[in-house]
Amino acid sequence: MIRSFVEGWGDIAAGIGDDAAVLEIPAGEKLVVSTDASVENVHFRRGDLSADEIGYRAAAAALSDLAAMASQPRGLLFALVLPAAWRGDASALANGVGRAARVAGCPVIGGNVSSGAELSITTTVLGVARSPLTRSGARVGDRVFVTGALGAAADAVDAWKHGRIPTPSSRGKFANPVPRIAEALWLARHGATAAIDISDGLAADARQLAQASFVKLTIEADAVPLGEGVTLEQALAGGDDYELLVTARELDASAFAKLFGIALTQIGMVSEASRRNEGELEVLHHGAQIPAPRGYDHLAVK
Amino acid sequence: MIRSFVEGWGDIAAGIGDDAAVLEIPAGEKLVVSTDASVENVHFRRGDLSADEIGYRAAAAALSDLAAMASQPRGLLFALVLPAAWRGDASALANGVGRAARVAGCPVIGGNVSSGAELSITTTVLGVARSPLTRSGARVGDRVFVTGALGAAADAVDAWKHGRIPTPSSRGKFANPVPRIAEALWLARHGATAAIDISDGLAADARQLAQASFVKLTIEADAVPLGEGVTLEQALAGGDDYELLVTARELDASAFAKLFGIALTQIGMVSEASRRNEGELEVLHHGAQIPAPRGYDHLAVK
Repeated sequence: MIRSFVEGWGDIAAGIGDDAAVLEIPAGEKLVVSTDASVENVHFRRGDLSADEIGYRAAAAALSDLAAMASQPRGLLFALVLPAAWRGDASALANGVGRAARVAGCPVIGGNVSSGAELSITTTVLGVARSPLTRSGARVGDRVFVTGALGAAADAVDAWKHGRIPTPSSRGKFANPVPRIAEALWLARHGATAAIDISDGLAADARQLAQASFVKLTIEADAVPLGEGVTLEQALAGGDDYELLVTARELDASAFAKLFGIALTQIGMVSEASRRNEGELEVLHHGAQIPAPRGYDHLAVK
Repeated sequence: MIRSFVEGWGDIAAGIGDDAAVLEIPAGEKLVVSTDASVENVHFRRGDLSADEIGYRAAAAALSDLAAMASQPRGLLFALVLPAAWRGDASALANGVGRAARVAGCPVIGGNVSSGAELSITTTVLGVARSPLTRSGARVGDRVFVTGALGAAADAVDAWKHGRIPTPSSRGKFANPVPRIAEALWLARHGATAAIDISDGLAADARQLAQASFVKLTIEADAVPLGEGVTLEQALAGGDDYELLVTARELDASAFAKLFGIALTQIGMVSEASRRNEGELEVLHHGAQIPAPRGYDHLAVK
């Protein structure tokens, strides 16, 4: 099975076959590594997505963590727990993983296949960066920006939850999120001070960044760029878009949009937190503070 | 939950909290990376092992892949899929992972927790090596060695399969395998040409090494060191011991035993394969060839 995966991956597969993969890390570069799981009925449901999309999305979500750190992807490991009922979909799952790896320019360097009762894909990604972006670098006086538009993936999830068919644009955003690798490298080169990828929802991830940086982050809800047909609530609370939230003193949004074909939108400001060694989030709507939604619970059945 | 894990790990936890972990790789060293899944009812069953042992064993199995490549461990990532029925055991699972990391001198640098219907632990390990050992370096004229004694883990699995209680020594070997990190580094320094860890069974892993090296590997079954109360069949076919199989022109077994307190036993020879670009395995018992068992199927229910 692994041999057939490697054949399907073509030239994006590299060095698979030993107990472990070997990577050269250029001197002066730091290694950046992250692992992420995608589990049936938690992160996706069979039928909502094709097997290829499930594989793609699992890998893209992991690669997005490298984008958040402004790292150049160098290797992806693909650990598949494959129930008997999914065996016929194994190639399509692997192809989807390979498609995401190709989008991010990331070689597939290893993996693991195990049987199991429930489909899960755990993707580990390795990248390199001279100065990785972190969540903790936001400074008082920075502006807050997001890439792209938000909420479409959440809109697709809401549709499925209520037994409706999602719009093609919302479904597409959920099924085929693009890890913002090239965008992140550009943002880091042009003065971004901190970043996080929006996987748990704008408000939840903005709060994480504020807490890691010990600052107050104010988001103007009216400025948040909404996906097509998306509500403000979906954009604030919904995760799974894998856009980037970054802070910087100044960024050239029109140069960014020209280069990448997606928007870079200022949605807020960074100011001093009211308590030392703590961070806080404030969301304003028409000038008044509104409650910031908590983290996003995916499709989880509690 | 992750915060409580990190507290439990103490000083073996490092740099957890960002989207990805950052590691410095010294110039001249290569990065070695592997991922391995441990799934309920495939690799272990609830009740046979404690939660701490399940976590330990999952991490130890992954770390053993670094031993196989003679790499110094530098980081471990722990991806947990946690069903509601296991939530009370989360700390014990994490403690077991931390215990294995500590045994191997490996910092825990990141992870992921997801809900799910079935417990699985996917462990990714990163190490460094100037010249990683591989499966493909065995040369004609090398001797074949194994560390420790084989078959005890398989003996424990056989006992559980037949509704018996395993002996303490067999159970201990299954529950608490020791990744042979320090041993592997010594073997690599002292002339080992190829290595593999015995996770699928001596015969299956020896065949892998022979095929990767394009050589014939002959194992003298009578020379195979058996664990306490273990049959030859269990030692040949049984995986899960995580001992090392290495090839070398010459190794000082008595120096090894004195240093590490476990045996290093010559069990065979490397000779020319009968076909170019292929490898083969031959197992001799009392001088006659016997069939080499195939790979090991863990506890898998087919």
